[in-house]
Amino acid sequence: MPVTPATRPGGRSARVQRSVHDAVRELVDERGREGLTVPMVAARASVTPSTVYRRWGDLHELLADVAVERLRPEAPPKDHGALRDDLHAWAEQFLDEMASPAGRAYIRDALSGDPDGRNAGQCSAYAAQQLKVMLERAAERDEPAPGLEEAMDRVVAPMMYRVLFRPSPLTAEYARSLVDSLLP
Amino acid sequence: MPVTPATRPGGRSARVQRSVHDAVRELVDERGREGLTVPMVAARASVTPSTVYRRWGDLHELLADVAVERLRPEAPPKDHGALRDDLHAWAEQFLDEMASPAGRAYIRDALSGDPDGRNAGQCSAYAAQQLKVMLERAAERDEPAPGLEEAMDRVVAPMMYRVLFRPSPLTAEYARSLVDSLLP
Repeated sequence: MPVTPATRPGGRSARVQRSVHDAVRELVDERGREGLTVPMVAARASVTPSTVYRRWGDLHELLADVAVERLRPEAPPKDHGALRDDLHAWAEQFLDEMASPAGRAYIRDALSGDPDGRNAGQCSAYAAQQLKVMLERAAERDEPAPGLEEAMDRVVAPMMYRVLFRPSPLTAEYARSLVDSLLP
Repeated sequence: MPVTPATRPGGRSARVQRSVHDAVRELVDERGREGLTVPMVAARASVTPSTVYRRWGDLHELLADVAVERLRPEAPPKDHGALRDDLHAWAEQFLDEMASPAGRAYIRDALSGDPDGRNAGQCSAYAAQQLKVMLERAAERDEPAPGLEEAMDRVVAPMMYRVLFRPSPLTAEYARSLVDSLLP
């Protein structure tokens, strides 16, 4: 599923979005989320605070928008020639990213500035889209493959649940074991 | 796992906790979370704002504390005489509570005012404790039973992932299907 940009790419609106997103990322890197304000972001992005309020509502919604953009996969999953290998590699990388301090912070941002659940739904759609590519490749190779919903429940959900709720060490072996328990 | 109270039950400290928690719940019921402030909560609870700040830090942490208390199960899961029946009933009720508007709001509160992950961990510990009771009963009946971690990954995680990330209708049949796919 292609991401639907809120704006024409290349227009003034896209430039504003890019400079505000960049400003948020720079300020968070420099000084963390604590104490971040819309006027600080606006000053760094060289726009007025009202531009930010008009477009994003408040700081939480802006942080959520930045988070969803950061959680967007950069490329389709690599083709390793077999579903198990594709899923192993993808699940390991997904867990590694999501369980990192930056990943955890982005997930929380995406969830918290999200009155209508749209951002969280977008995060989930990214993962579903990646799985779908791998499952369709498997079908083309005539490999037996589970359904998309089953793969979401059995591979993505446990990893995300642990990242959010269970402060346990999350290893590549854990990611691989979920894949192995899913496949025949 | 018994909840560890932050204070001696029955002391002044416990009375303050109870009246502040009650004040939060009343105010949220009456007017929602938007615009809620610590001074408003303190006034309703007849304590000073500094009492609240000293004990809870800020509004987010207070909301998280109230949420975790609300998510605490009130009783051990019912004994239906067979693991499948126990898990069906428990999963249906768990999903029903978590997917309700109040449940979703409490989960978000618990996650967002949670700098160290302690509240989210407590929510997860509640679910794990309930599953453990059912799995131990199954062992006493000599029923075959999965491990606790597998049950968390296969039943609790998919429900919580969908509640948080996937705006799809969540039915009792879905909860039961997760149990059926877990059991032999």
